[in-house]
Amino acid sequence: MQINLNADMGESFGPWPMGDDASLIRVINSANVACGFHAGDPMHMVATVRSAIANGVSIGAHPAFQDLQGFGRRPVKLSDAELTAIVTYQVGALQAIAHAQGGAVTHVKPHGAMSNMACADDAMATTIARAVKAIDPQLILLAPACSALARAGEAAGLRVAIEVFADRAYQADGQLVPRSQPHAMVHGAEASAAHVLRMIDAGGLVTHTGAVLPTPIHSICVHGDNPEAVASAAAVRDALRTMGYALVAIDQLLAT
Amino acid sequence: MQINLNADMGESFGPWPMGDDASLIRVINSANVACGFHAGDPMHMVATVRSAIANGVSIGAHPAFQDLQGFGRRPVKLSDAELTAIVTYQVGALQAIAHAQGGAVTHVKPHGAMSNMACADDAMATTIARAVKAIDPQLILLAPACSALARAGEAAGLRVAIEVFADRAYQADGQLVPRSQPHAMVHGAEASAAHVLRMIDAGGLVTHTGAVLPTPIHSICVHGDNPEAVASAAAVRDALRTMGYALVAIDQLLAT
Amino acid sequence: MQINLNADMGESFGPWPMGDDASLIRVINSANVACGFHAGDPMHMVATVRSAIANGVSIGAHPAFQDLQGFGRRPVKLSDAELTAIVTYQVGALQAIAHAQGGAVTHVKPHGAMSNMACADDAMATTIARAVKAIDPQLILLAPACSALARAGEAAGLRVAIEVFADRAYQADGQLVPRSQPHAMVHGAEASAAHVLRMIDAGGLVTHTGAVLPTPIHSICVHGDNPEAVASAAAVRDALRTMGYALVAIDQLLAT
Amino acid sequence: MQINLNADMGESFGPWPMGDDASLIRVINSANVACGFHAGDPMHMVATVRSAIANGVSIGAHPAFQDLQGFGRRPVKLSDAELTAIVTYQVGALQAIAHAQGGAVTHVKPHGAMSNMACADDAMATTIARAVKAIDPQLILLAPACSALARAGEAAGLRVAIEVFADRAYQADGQLVPRSQPHAMVHGAEASAAHVLRMIDAGGLVTHTGAVLPTPIHSICVHGDNPEAVASAAAVRDALRTMGYALVAIDQLLAT
Repeated sequence: MQINLNADMGESFGPWPMGDDASLIRVINSANVACGFHAGDPMHMVATVRSAIANGVSIGAHPAFQDLQGFGRRPVKLSDAELTAIVTYQVGALQAIAHAQGGAVTHVKPHGAMSNMACADDAMATTIARAVKAIDPQLILLAPACSALARAGEAAGLRVAIEVFADRAYQADGQLVPRSQPHAMVHGAEASAAHVLRMIDAGGLVTHTGAVLPTPIHSICVHGDNPEAVASAAAVRDALRTMGYALVAIDQLLAT
Repeated sequence: MQINLNADMGESFGPWPMGDDASLIRVINSANVACGFHAGDPMHMVATVRSAIANGVSIGAHPAFQDLQGFGRRPVKLSDAELTAIVTYQVGALQAIAHAQGGAVTHVKPHGAMSNMACADDAMATTIARAVKAIDPQLILLAPACSALARAGEAAGLRVAIEVFADRAYQADGQLVPRSQPHAMVHGAEASAAHVLRMIDAGGLVTHTGAVLPTPIHSICVHGDNPEAVASAAAVRDALRTMGYALVAIDQLLAT
Repeated sequence: MQINLNADMGESFGPWPMGDDASLIRVINSANVACGFHAGDPMHMVATVRSAIANGVSIGAHPAFQDLQGFGRRPVKLSDAELTAIVTYQVGALQAIAHAQGGAVTHVKPHGAMSNMACADDAMATTIARAVKAIDPQLILLAPACSALARAGEAAGLRVAIEVFADRAYQADGQLVPRSQPHAMVHGAEASAAHVLRMIDAGGLVTHTGAVLPTPIHSICVHGDNPEAVASAAAVRDALRTMGYALVAIDQLLAT
Repeated sequence: MQINLNADMGESFGPWPMGDDASLIRVINSANVACGFHAGDPMHMVATVRSAIANGVSIGAHPAFQDLQGFGRRPVKLSDAELTAIVTYQVGALQAIAHAQGGAVTHVKPHGAMSNMACADDAMATTIARAVKAIDPQLILLAPACSALARAGEAAGLRVAIEVFADRAYQADGQLVPRSQPHAMVHGAEASAAHVLRMIDAGGLVTHTGAVLPTPIHSICVHGDNPEAVASAAAVRDALRTMGYALVAIDQLLAT
């Protein structure tokens, strides 16, 4: 009866703030920290790591394609060697920052287009999983339910934390309903909490037609890009607690 | 009777090559690897680390100001927190890349303007030394003889490797004769080797007027930006061997 | 009885918004548009130019050092040739964007550290003024009162618009009281409007001790980084109108 | 009996040189100048423009995706608005630099992945053609023979200069034989010159099976990335002269 809330954090860059990290960090258990390629920079990484440590939140690396302009959301085709190199570079940068602050990186979750592509592409997913394992085989891969990335993490022998999204509807194949379609989003705190509880109860993804795709669910991905989003994340947390779940960091949940 | 030859490496960027690393790596014992801020990128870092491991050359991080355009040679005034963050970020990125290749980063040597400023500024030198220590207290700081950076490294309790330059003349205060002045450079393989042997023999920097500033000398910094430079580095190495010196990696020289 | 209000605009970057441009554009007469080096990007430049044209606001280029991370506030020492090249590049990029939207760049105002340095350094000011003239001798240089930049613009034969700041106090030498000091800022809409009216009335800068440094005043620089700032800018505008001033674009004010 | 030789130029970046521009500029008639997004920077743009003017070579902008790391060769999917904005930005930057040196940009030729994608994608080609026209309807679009880009330029009412490649073989559909295949390249000065003469003689592309795809040919694209390439370019030029062709700049060839 343990579960985890994760969120993307540290996506400010230079003089430009993004998100209400200070509020959201008090709601979640694990932070995916931007590593400077799509957002974040060394200073914001230090600040985010400090805040995570102070709030008992575990630290994950959130590597991305090198694309500040497009926030890492633009698909890029890289060779396996390039993909491995940029993942390793970003995770390592955060590891040293976490270590210097008395913390440690315990999970990795790819961002944006890198994640979307790896969720649908076995070869790319395998490259990322192997890159993570080569950095440290104790690192946990945080991956969407029913994704190629989750499968590749398991095949590589990594611990894999499976996540679902509190505010997104699922298609029959387990993929997210694209944002361009109606009903892509689950709106509001109450509906998000209900969506999450339904999936946990069902032991799998519940698609927008009500079908169930069985999967373990270790973590709920929440967002903090506006006050309502933080309230929604808190509602999900409270609902889970009411159900009797203990909310713990990813590395506690999947302790070796 | 041990000494070290170090050189800057991996300063190619994307499609642009720089230096004859493949030749120089066979001459030196320790490589200062560019970390993507003034030069280098994740792919070139992987390639340089592999080459270093294959050639028995120890791996050092060569952090710099974020300045590809100016090759890290433009002075920038950063806060202590910013300086700490960018040094930690770069060293960490290389650590993970080295680790994933089966190697390890054993020293840190600041690049360009960051180094020049830290050699003359006690506060900045102290910030860098403390940043390196917080990453890993076993890291060796590679610093110019008679510099604030060397002193700060020792004050921080780091092992400090002291370097002299094979191809540069020294002023009365131990600083390099600026390149803008005549006699700044020591030209040619023979003269460089003689310059180095004179300093080792004297147990200190030998200034351009012949005065001696006593200092330990652990390492000789050589360059590989043209065929002549590689030949000159090899001449220095051969002269040291003839003198009976064993050429070893920095972490062997200063083994704990 | 004409005067101008100018403000920095288009300082969003990629996914990161900055400032309430949509509100401020309705208050001011001339926009200093970020050109991608310290902030802004091609898309935000297009959007800002369109908004300026739609609101009858004249378009200025706001070139800066290449420093997104530090928002162009970090001093950098460039050669005259480098400084000339980056100013020309940025102004040209905006000129084409403005032209393609049916508008035109009519003034240039350096940003951040580039401006601060040029206001105190005659040589650097001269380089910038000559760069602007070489792009188009009809361009107006918008420069702080009593600055080296204003003098260099006049010496180069450019039209120079002299600006004062609505929310900053002045020292005895005409420089801004540094932000690190108390009384650096003029707080609130009413005080800002009074500060501006006092200077216009006096025909010069009014220092924080009440001394007057005579100077023409063509333009008032206002900010829009928060709702209060926009209100303050509107208060300055309204006060000037009440005094009988017509608020016009810089190129109307200094029409050839 | 006029024809043109064009080449990509100014692809150095910061401290990293690329290509033997100083030699190649004496062979060609029109230069495609990198604009800082895939290569080049403001300083190298100034130097390249000066060299072009000094050698009577016409100046073209060579806009690309924003991708120094990948040299603009990585496909990126941009919106029409983004593509328009980055093309306009880059062309404008070069226009101002050219103007400040007493020259002018007379043509535009997209680079790398932007070109490859636009040659096969009518919508993208149309976006680029319209962007160029909005900057200045007198600009010439330099586009590969039988490409969507060439067709879009004509449809937009631009003057279009059609180019063939001296060192590349063509497929039955007029596309280049991919580099991954044998016979993709035409090797050597003599073979390149013969390849070009055969196409001019035939009045169209000559595919690797000898079929002819009729097309006007205004310009030959040559390269200068090694001494042999420059020699090959010179051989093509000499062969054309021997045939009685006058080698002229693009804007002379397509004079209004």
